[in-house]
Amino acid sequence: MNSGSGSGAAVISCGEELLDGRVQDANSCYLASRLFRLGLPVAEMATVGDGCGAFAEVIARCDGRVPLIVSTGGLGPTADDRVRQEVADSLGSGLEEIPGAVEPLADLFRQQHAVDPPTHFLAQGFQPVGAVALRNRAGTAWGFRVELPKGSWLLCLPGPPGECHQVWLDGGEDFVRERFAGGRDLAFGLFHTVSVPESAVESKIRDLLELGNPRYGITAHGKQVSISVLAEGLADSGSAADILEEHARLLHQRLGDILWGRDEESLEAVVVRRLALHKQTLATAESCTGGRLGHAVTTVSGASEVYRFGWVTYANEAKVSELGVDAALFDGPGAPGAVSEGVAVAMAEGARQRAGADFGLAVTGIAGPSGATPEKPVGTVWIGLAGPAGSYAVLRQQWTRAGRNGIQQGSVKDALELLRRELLGLPRLAPRRR
Amino acid sequence: MNSGSGSGAAVISCGEELLDGRVQDANSCYLASRLFRLGLPVAEMATVGDGCGAFAEVIARCDGRVPLIVSTGGLGPTADDRVRQEVADSLGSGLEEIPGAVEPLADLFRQQHAVDPPTHFLAQGFQPVGAVALRNRAGTAWGFRVELPKGSWLLCLPGPPGECHQVWLDGGEDFVRERFAGGRDLAFGLFHTVSVPESAVESKIRDLLELGNPRYGITAHGKQVSISVLAEGLADSGSAADILEEHARLLHQRLGDILWGRDEESLEAVVVRRLALHKQTLATAESCTGGRLGHAVTTVSGASEVYRFGWVTYANEAKVSELGVDAALFDGPGAPGAVSEGVAVAMAEGARQRAGADFGLAVTGIAGPSGATPEKPVGTVWIGLAGPAGSYAVLRQQWTRAGRNGIQQGSVKDALELLRRELLGLPRLAPRRR
Repeated sequence: MNSGSGSGAAVISCGEELLDGRVQDANSCYLASRLFRLGLPVAEMATVGDGCGAFAEVIARCDGRVPLIVSTGGLGPTADDRVRQEVADSLGSGLEEIPGAVEPLADLFRQQHAVDPPTHFLAQGFQPVGAVALRNRAGTAWGFRVELPKGSWLLCLPGPPGECHQVWLDGGEDFVRERFAGGRDLAFGLFHTVSVPESAVESKIRDLLELGNPRYGITAHGKQVSISVLAEGLADSGSAADILEEHARLLHQRLGDILWGRDEESLEAVVVRRLALHKQTLATAESCTGGRLGHAVTTVSGASEVYRFGWVTYANEAKVSELGVDAALFDGPGAPGAVSEGVAVAMAEGARQRAGADFGLAVTGIAGPSGATPEKPVGTVWIGLAGPAGSYAVLRQQWTRAGRNGIQQGSVKDALELLRRELLGLPRLAPRRR
Repeated sequence: MNSGSGSGAAVISCGEELLDGRVQDANSCYLASRLFRLGLPVAEMATVGDGCGAFAEVIARCDGRVPLIVSTGGLGPTADDRVRQEVADSLGSGLEEIPGAVEPLADLFRQQHAVDPPTHFLAQGFQPVGAVALRNRAGTAWGFRVELPKGSWLLCLPGPPGECHQVWLDGGEDFVRERFAGGRDLAFGLFHTVSVPESAVESKIRDLLELGNPRYGITAHGKQVSISVLAEGLADSGSAADILEEHARLLHQRLGDILWGRDEESLEAVVVRRLALHKQTLATAESCTGGRLGHAVTTVSGASEVYRFGWVTYANEAKVSELGVDAALFDGPGAPGAVSEGVAVAMAEGARQRAGADFGLAVTGIAGPSGATPEKPVGTVWIGLAGPAGSYAVLRQQWTRAGRNGIQQGSVKDALELLRRELLGLPRLAPRRR
């Protein structure tokens, strides 16, 4: 059923705010990853402005070259939103009212503004004649899909990311799977590691990266390295699901305990769920991360079951008065100072004790740009952990080119990974391991 | 001197990891905003893969249509990095060694791997014959610029964002300004507000948005609404700088005290600098934001001068034991509960007192998805402030469609804005203002 001569898809973003750099396009990456999982890789992405004819031109260029074109933006209530009209023009058709779309829009506008809606606002309920409407549960602009003159299918989605994702999931993905994944049996999995260099992960799976089926990919986001696996069930192979699970097992063999999660899981969520499972609690004590570790834990819905106390002891006197760290560790001859194994352990123990928690997790380091010494360069971070099995700390040197933000982010990931290993009873890291 | 027949620029991103959605393109938005400030708006953006000829094809399409093409990616050390070769092919030229580039690359590789470098690695020090090399201080891949057959100029920058930005600033921006901004006198300013709806900001400057010179733009990022102003000095007008400052004054008249900062300033930095100026200190007490407020403050280099103590009192018992909040506020008949004016004030006062700080800033609310009640829906957030002039709290309902993350982020912005207003002696917000 594939229309269009080429293979793959084109993703088009429409909006002046993208071309002048005011807004970063978040939709193209999302759609690309969804299309990839459907076995329809993106062949080209383009971004065009609101200028008259700009959208029609790029559509005309893609029509017939790829079977599917997905566009975002240009469907809103302003005069600049020209996508409906330009598609209609390139089809040589007019616009028609989407049945049941316009009156609710008019009512909504009257409710909000107590006056009758302008034509531009109601235009959000129109589509090119013969198109299939795509309802928008997240906003007012309807989407639509339509077949183009040279046989490519065009899906037009709204621009605001929340609306784009909603309309894609409601009315786009199934259509694309049925029509373009054409009965292919596909399964996708994403496998996550953290605190291990990309090169180290790659060296363990280099042969797998060469496979045709399943198709492997590897990506680093800061400290997290993720491996993607796209499997296809073919006549001479098992089902896609079987192949994927076989490789999931293979990855566990290859990567062992550095593999912490899969697909949409976050390291924070894995740690919080594990604590909740055993009705255990966590307290945090932060210096250079300034609260980012506590925040990471509380991004997980339900964190309140396991996380109740946290301290941001940015100053040494705070470490002393709130966590009971021995002041002698900071000053005086031979004192190790705030960024040291001893202080990291004392912070973790103080937090655990004061909170009456099962675990105390502490971070103290130099996020820079100031505060460094010859012995303690920017990026020097000690992470302390106190728990039922005792206390210890590890030095995790952070990649300084990532800057202050990257050092804080990396420290949080390293701290969560240290806790995960403790919770799972995995071997502890060597104190001075970098 | 403008080569190319059209106007504006094209930005091309190259990389398979962009097309399969593994990595979000951060370079195009950055380059678009830099080019916009140079008066050379981006006419089109495109993303292509590593496939043979894909880069050459898009370059050929743009050559002669726009005077400038800026590309990112495809310059690295792997076999997939084909940009140098494809540009050379489309010029009908070969590749040449960039003087002084290759030997250092070879030395670096030998240092790191103790073996001689493969050809692909050394390719990072080559460019199409006749190109101008662009040094990369942030990585190993050199960039270059070259004139194309139909007269457009092509700037090729490396893909990793840190390297792309560095090479652009070192070797791209001045060239583009001199050659394409062609003596135009331009000045760009960005003016920030927070905690006020975009529609409210827009209504105060609607007439300015219609102006041709300076050209206005408006963008909302969560709670922050920013206004961009691009001024051009023309024969019949003053200089660009004069026009910009005149409109800066105009914006201050129109927007008054909701205007908090300009250009690269962050609200956190404004607050930290103001506190430092008066040698005042801040302590934070957080519930629903879980440490995100403290983290925001500590993203500012030098925050340690003003920020020394913070608490994440996620549980009520933590609010009682660490901040001295009266337990009666949580339980018992008619108790207001954790998300209330009384608790927000008590948290702020407790943090201020316990830290011996000049100001205490507290956040308590319902980030959701659980924890809501009919009286306190998800997004209900009380922000408390305690300072030399006394204590108070305001209710700031958060936009719930933004989800847990958006509610936490919005609460942090609202809290910082509350403190900024107090530090500047601006009128306090009404307690129940939403």
